Amino acid sequence: MKLLTYKTQDSESRLGFIHNNMVVDMEDFGGISNFPLPNDMLELIDMGYEVIEEISNLIEDTRLVDFENISLTLNEVQILAPIEKPRKNIIGIGLNYTEHVAESARSLDTTGKLPAKPIIFSKPPTTVTATNTEIIKNTKLTSQLDWECELGVIISKKGKYVSKADALDYVFGYTVINDISARDCRREGQWIVSKGQDTFAPMGPFLVTKDEIENPHNLNLSLKVNGIEKQNSNTKFMLFNINDLIEDLSTVFTLEPGDIIATGTPAGVGAGRNPQEWLHDGDVVEATVEGIGTIVNTVKEISK
Amino acid sequence: MKLLTYKTQDSESRLGFIHNNMVVDMEDFGGISNFPLPNDMLELIDMGYEVIEEISNLIEDTRLVDFENISLTLNEVQILAPIEKPRKNIIGIGLNYTEHVAESARSLDTTGKLPAKPIIFSKPPTTVTATNTEIIKNTKLTSQLDWECELGVIISKKGKYVSKADALDYVFGYTVINDISARDCRREGQWIVSKGQDTFAPMGPFLVTKDEIENPHNLNLSLKVNGIEKQNSNTKFMLFNINDLIEDLSTVFTLEPGDIIATGTPAGVGAGRNPQEWLHDGDVVEATVEGIGTIVNTVKEISK
Repeated sequence: MKLLTYKTQDSESRLGFIHNNMVVDMEDFGGISNFPLPNDMLELIDMGYEVIEEISNLIEDTRLVDFENISLTLNEVQILAPIEKPRKNIIGIGLNYTEHVAESARSLDTTGKLPAKPIIFSKPPTTVTATNTEIIKNTKLTSQLDWECELGVIISKKGKYVSKADALDYVFGYTVINDISARDCRREGQWIVSKGQDTFAPMGPFLVTKDEIENPHNLNLSLKVNGIEKQNSNTKFMLFNINDLIEDLSTVFTLEPGDIIATGTPAGVGAGRNPQEWLHDGDVVEATVEGIGTIVNTVKEISK
Repeated sequence: MKLLTYKTQDSESRLGFIHNNMVVDMEDFGGISNFPLPNDMLELIDMGYEVIEEISNLIEDTRLVDFENISLTLNEVQILAPIEKPRKNIIGIGLNYTEHVAESARSLDTTGKLPAKPIIFSKPPTTVTATNTEIIKNTKLTSQLDWECELGVIISKKGKYVSKADALDYVFGYTVINDISARDCRREGQWIVSKGQDTFAPMGPFLVTKDEIENPHNLNLSLKVNGIEKQNSNTKFMLFNINDLIEDLSTVFTLEPGDIIATGTPAGVGAGRNPQEWLHDGDVVEATVEGIGTIVNTVKEISK
């Protein structure tokens, strides 16, 4: 199921799903189905992954005509980030594709050795922004703004010491994240200022539940700047795959419903290019993951 | 005002304040005062700092006898962390006391240079634990568990590009945080695994509102392990004081009500001692900040 958070000219933030290329309002669908459904993505996740199968069954049982009054075309809505306000910082994974480890060592301050364990950092909830919004580049803080197309994994339930074998049971679904990084904002090696500025996590357009993704470890992901392809790889090249990440992360933190893992980016970032390339005012960045969609954001320079 | 989150044998988590050495239930006090008050610290903070003055006035107008039915002795309650579930990762500040910068460079992988800007990291909400609880040391992850007594600052309202001059207007109050750190859990230099494991942020016992702290930049802070003093300094020795931190952080992130800043630790951590000292099963750690109180936690070793 393709879930989304959206608004219209007449409404605040609403939860919906895509059916027959239309946006169906989730709460309204619950209304016509006599099955109370929430108006917020995190509340839906809190119902447990099983709710997705129930909703799917209800959709099958619903006549086409009954969708009419609770549907909008995609043109009629503004897509918001699927989880507008995560409950904690996004968990970011660094150096999780071999070629990106190599390009980073050439251009940044990392060692070039393949990491023995996942490299973890975080991006505050205030980094989240939707497709078709601006990435704010504060020129007083950075002149090296960079892109990173990533598969985002959304956690379905609480877990500690989760084994690799069970890990995908803890997944609710997937999204696209552009892990925007100001390369010159590292402080004593810490990445949070580099990765954590407001608008540095464009996310969306959809949260695709795991039943729709046959194999999350075989998804193409790619990124364009002003129409020119900069990244093109596949999630099969992750060093630590989703199972590895969930096992490792859950030895460190208790995972919780709605947690978001940004699983790392492949080669082709601006810092790794020769000469290096950075994002500037007006640049349009499109990040795509197969089976999920594309998020498009425009860079806006400010000086504050 | 000394605020606390607490529970009793008969209740779930409640919000309260200390008055005449008794714990007064906040919601019940609102009831007798005809002034609706919440049962949750974050909801209180969301009312804005001004509510503290209103509550103080109501307390002055309340007869001693009227407190009787809504008060408990401290012995009758279990103190919980003042904010049990922060809305995002705690913002940690590294290397923010001169002597600690020096000891860290001798013993850890930092440079010894005084940082030009605050060193920022984060601790997930799942790190938070109360006084009189256990710090879990997973011996499969760490053999170098260390302590860090710190002043915690709680933010009162949304702010971006806050000036130093205005910074304290954005403070709601203060608490004690023990920034527990597993020194051997850094990964490619990132501190979040070192700092972010479950129970690695003992916090409390009280959230003291700023009206009760005459000068947050002149508070003694100290820490004992098994009764022996290991840290003893004063917040006046911070490299970046609270005003500096709020100005800098708010250029990076939008600050929000309930955000927590752990402002860094002075010298005397285990890693900086000769020979180095680490926390072991059964060790009792007491962290104190003048005017706020003491949090006491016991180390519990597990192997998972």
